Amino acid sequence: MLRLAIIGAGRIGQVHAKTIASHPAAELVLIADPVAGAASRVAKSIGVRATGTIDEVYSAADVDAVVVCSPTKHHVDQIMAAVAAGKAVLTEKPVDLSVERVDQCLAAIAGNEHRVMVGFNRRFDPGVVELKARIDAGEIGALRQLTIVSRDPAAPPANYLINNGGIFRDMTIHDFDMARFLLGDFVEVAASGHAFIDGIGEIGDIDTATVTLTTASGAVCTILNSRECAAGYDQRIEAFGPKGSLETANLRSTGVQFNGPAGTGVAGPYLPFFLERYAHAYTNELDHFITAIESGQAPKPSVLDGRGALLLADAADEAAKQHTVVTIA
Amino acid sequence: MLRLAIIGAGRIGQVHAKTIASHPAAELVLIADPVAGAASRVAKSIGVRATGTIDEVYSAADVDAVVVCSPTKHHVDQIMAAVAAGKAVLTEKPVDLSVERVDQCLAAIAGNEHRVMVGFNRRFDPGVVELKARIDAGEIGALRQLTIVSRDPAAPPANYLINNGGIFRDMTIHDFDMARFLLGDFVEVAASGHAFIDGIGEIGDIDTATVTLTTASGAVCTILNSRECAAGYDQRIEAFGPKGSLETANLRSTGVQFNGPAGTGVAGPYLPFFLERYAHAYTNELDHFITAIESGQAPKPSVLDGRGALLLADAADEAAKQHTVVTIA
Amino acid sequence: MLRLAIIGAGRIGQVHAKTIASHPAAELVLIADPVAGAASRVAKSIGVRATGTIDEVYSAADVDAVVVCSPTKHHVDQIMAAVAAGKAVLTEKPVDLSVERVDQCLAAIAGNEHRVMVGFNRRFDPGVVELKARIDAGEIGALRQLTIVSRDPAAPPANYLINNGGIFRDMTIHDFDMARFLLGDFVEVAASGHAFIDGIGEIGDIDTATVTLTTASGAVCTILNSRECAAGYDQRIEAFGPKGSLETANLRSTGVQFNGPAGTGVAGPYLPFFLERYAHAYTNELDHFITAIESGQAPKPSVLDGRGALLLADAADEAAKQHTVVTIA
Amino acid sequence: MLRLAIIGAGRIGQVHAKTIASHPAAELVLIADPVAGAASRVAKSIGVRATGTIDEVYSAADVDAVVVCSPTKHHVDQIMAAVAAGKAVLTEKPVDLSVERVDQCLAAIAGNEHRVMVGFNRRFDPGVVELKARIDAGEIGALRQLTIVSRDPAAPPANYLINNGGIFRDMTIHDFDMARFLLGDFVEVAASGHAFIDGIGEIGDIDTATVTLTTASGAVCTILNSRECAAGYDQRIEAFGPKGSLETANLRSTGVQFNGPAGTGVAGPYLPFFLERYAHAYTNELDHFITAIESGQAPKPSVLDGRGALLLADAADEAAKQHTVVTIA
Repeated sequence: MLRLAIIGAGRIGQVHAKTIASHPAAELVLIADPVAGAASRVAKSIGVRATGTIDEVYSAADVDAVVVCSPTKHHVDQIMAAVAAGKAVLTEKPVDLSVERVDQCLAAIAGNEHRVMVGFNRRFDPGVVELKARIDAGEIGALRQLTIVSRDPAAPPANYLINNGGIFRDMTIHDFDMARFLLGDFVEVAASGHAFIDGIGEIGDIDTATVTLTTASGAVCTILNSRECAAGYDQRIEAFGPKGSLETANLRSTGVQFNGPAGTGVAGPYLPFFLERYAHAYTNELDHFITAIESGQAPKPSVLDGRGALLLADAADEAAKQHTVVTIA
Repeated sequence: MLRLAIIGAGRIGQVHAKTIASHPAAELVLIADPVAGAASRVAKSIGVRATGTIDEVYSAADVDAVVVCSPTKHHVDQIMAAVAAGKAVLTEKPVDLSVERVDQCLAAIAGNEHRVMVGFNRRFDPGVVELKARIDAGEIGALRQLTIVSRDPAAPPANYLINNGGIFRDMTIHDFDMARFLLGDFVEVAASGHAFIDGIGEIGDIDTATVTLTTASGAVCTILNSRECAAGYDQRIEAFGPKGSLETANLRSTGVQFNGPAGTGVAGPYLPFFLERYAHAYTNELDHFITAIESGQAPKPSVLDGRGALLLADAADEAAKQHTVVTIA
Repeated sequence: MLRLAIIGAGRIGQVHAKTIASHPAAELVLIADPVAGAASRVAKSIGVRATGTIDEVYSAADVDAVVVCSPTKHHVDQIMAAVAAGKAVLTEKPVDLSVERVDQCLAAIAGNEHRVMVGFNRRFDPGVVELKARIDAGEIGALRQLTIVSRDPAAPPANYLINNGGIFRDMTIHDFDMARFLLGDFVEVAASGHAFIDGIGEIGDIDTATVTLTTASGAVCTILNSRECAAGYDQRIEAFGPKGSLETANLRSTGVQFNGPAGTGVAGPYLPFFLERYAHAYTNELDHFITAIESGQAPKPSVLDGRGALLLADAADEAAKQHTVVTIA
Repeated sequence: MLRLAIIGAGRIGQVHAKTIASHPAAELVLIADPVAGAASRVAKSIGVRATGTIDEVYSAADVDAVVVCSPTKHHVDQIMAAVAAGKAVLTEKPVDLSVERVDQCLAAIAGNEHRVMVGFNRRFDPGVVELKARIDAGEIGALRQLTIVSRDPAAPPANYLINNGGIFRDMTIHDFDMARFLLGDFVEVAASGHAFIDGIGEIGDIDTATVTLTTASGAVCTILNSRECAAGYDQRIEAFGPKGSLETANLRSTGVQFNGPAGTGVAGPYLPFFLERYAHAYTNELDHFITAIESGQAPKPSVLDGRGALLLADAADEAAKQHTVVTIA
């Protein structure tokens, strides 16, 4: 039984709280949030302790591991503090918006890398797990083209986006991790995008992006992003190799289809957003974290994986802004 | 090069006229229709001879084979006359609405059965051909359940239906032939149906029917019919056996799909009706007829097959009217 | 918070135990099973009381409701005893294999009908719920044809089947409930089937069945059953009306598809069996039971619904054996 | 009735010969090919005149229009000669591998642009026609992302590829035309690719390419190409806009699907290659050409469209080789 504390009682903190509370091998003991009342409100509904003082998490003797769900700018400090206090850490993505800060984090946790995991939840989606396993089994041969479609149902308010580092570091970061998970390292990045949605361009961001990543062996990953999608949360991957292709299709809440004058084979909307689409992924992610920490094996993805995704985000940002192809050392 | 004449210049006659005109191994030489002008109008557009006198078809020295597209009540007389005149015959379905008349026909053409074919066009649909071949190859084992969905897009006017023998002899006859083609002979028939459409009940007919046919070995074929279908011409077959199932899905004119607030995976309408859905089947049917006649081998389906389908129609009619299970000798 | 006891610690009892244990408005307090050790093994894993004496369930002051998961022959006695003891009851299907016994049960619980629910779980499947709601909303008009495909992945051993009343009372009973749920009452039943699987015919049962049910207004429901299906657990419904059709498609564990020489659009197996396919249904069924009991409103389906399904099973059994159409009073 | 001659009796010349021969408003009168016997062999099978002297095409009084199906290097000379002789021209793509040569052609046909059409057949595919019409009707709003997947089933021998200008001018040229057809002009081009197939790298070409094209308004088209595809001829387009998306799915020869242990929903192979996939497109292309020429209206796509596609091919070639983003004036 791994005893966990959560830092950050916001939306994603609540997701983890529920996932932990219903996990047979995990015990949630403490929720911390500096916003008075936020932690206690969530903690009360689950029946665990709450605190407004983050340091209590590090000093609590009954906390084995910490799930970091705070705003991104606090991630690195909290990861370092938790590791220093002997806690294992599962941190939400991204590790930080700055590679330098991530490097500081890596230096600080040296020797304890096997105690820290980054929550790129999609790696644990059953469809992605199956896709990866079948690729690794050689079913379609070595990948030549990988296409990741990742479109959110609706953009958050522009003021939410203003401090999150731009679309590549905030949203595409998940797709960069998928690209690395399925294809490894990349040597070149090109990107093109535009702000179509009111307010996004005003804050210097874009809402629609196309990124191509090339590996040393010539395989290319294309990422298609949009902050809004009228059909819902559009999450698809196509892996193409010499022996065939594998796709992960969108999922719906039921299998009901309509046939009539308005169309045939009319299925319902996609699962609305990440909470529904990746519900199983959060559980599987926690499974992996618990198993890894308890067995002493390094969980994946690591902070180094977080750094790898961030490097791609930086490169894509530069490529899009400079209208150039960026080479990665 | 097989030289053909067509009797009957109506809708189905025109389908055959075009199919023959564009077939490299067939030559259309004559179109006959007692309605003044009907034959000549069609013949002119294709550039062949026309006549209002059916007998000219039998006496024409340059006619090798006759395609019978007249009203059903004339089929048997014209088949017999054509065969007596040494012509091969491809007749539209049904052979007749009366088994006695079909038996007279069979007696009259005795010794020339290999010269007469009945136009159950669906046997020649590429999907049905593939289904049959894969069943015969043992891909799903011996059939246990066969389901045929056959729904027309819209009912014809009730006055068109009044003399056609009822839904089982006019519409389901195609499905009875499919059932026999894929499952062989049946020993029991049950049927249930109703007239939902205005005017159909008034003429003593039904527009929606469900028929079950049981073979001696216990396999069951279910036929689902409707004279109208809001989604279009609904033509599907599912064959279920111990090793798997095979289905023929509905076809559309393009592969375009829409995803948006109104639904996802929204495909277009089914191919509108039999002319579009079975366009290839008419060509393949003609191919088979020509090849069989020129090689002296009996074409299929035969008049005996037409009789077999009619027996099932009679049984279904009785079963539905008497609310009983009808045993076939 | 509804406090529940479970009678019967077998497979389905364990399903309910887990469902109740993770339900926020339910508390599992006791598991009873006359087989020594069976109840305690399950109870221990969840951390609740166990007993080998069924009567303890009725006398326990902290038990508000009983979930009956015992062998079918005990259902009626236990329902009556529980109701007599003032408990609400959720009983597994079928209520009994004999209509007389069901009628005794109904007589015994008279006045308490609103305290007893029958666990036809499929009514609570999200796809079925959506289908029903859209039909009721008039999306496709009044149903004319309803087709229920229900095929198990593999037959249980023949000795398991020997005392369960035959395929219609054991397996089709679910489909009869679906038929009643979506189409109401029926006036005629026809059925045809066969034993294809080794051992099934020997015990006087069949493994493959086709049933047609006709309503007074002429709508027809067709049920296609098989005790084995090479493609997995095949669970589909098609509802056809004058304005269109609605289908519930099979579900898979992921959306991964393969395209290559072996085929295109190759999806994975269906969800393997009822535990996976109807996992959400069990939770929703419990939701409904709790809400109904706590609010004093009669839960559905009722024992009367259980009786209705059983009458159809009896009729189908007679129809198949007598090769006739059975009329229902 | 438009009277046509064909220059070039190779594979694509034969496609046009058959299309013209079966078109009611077209008459094929002459086939010319300098290879002795090639023209006469094709001409004989159709029953038209043949010549080994190309000039006879220009001087023939009974030829209204010429279909240029010769090797690419002869296209411009033959277009100019035919136009100078007063003939209308339908030329196969590409117009030429050099923009300078295309400009010479444009200068030479100045004033007769409405008499020359380039055979980008995909514009006439029913799926593409529907896609374009629905986009133009505003169904999904102004395009933001356009994805074109275009993969051939198998690479031709490397020695066939050696003189065709590389993948972008030979194969992607079709996709560049699609991109221009659906999105208009582009201002930036990026491309990445690799030679995975034996022999392709040796001749300085690549076989797998990913191209991104950006419009002035920020919309991005992504093209995914491969010279080989184990699943067959993979031809799909996805158009994504603020109000939804439209896709053209792959087509199969039948709608047969298999469900069993090897997979569910297993469809057959895609239509094998362009002759089958775009069979209707060739007929519709000829329709458009005849209608335009006979009515005096300029057919589309024009030589200017051919130039536009070639400019994109040149830019992609440079982008891929220089690892840079190429700006288009």
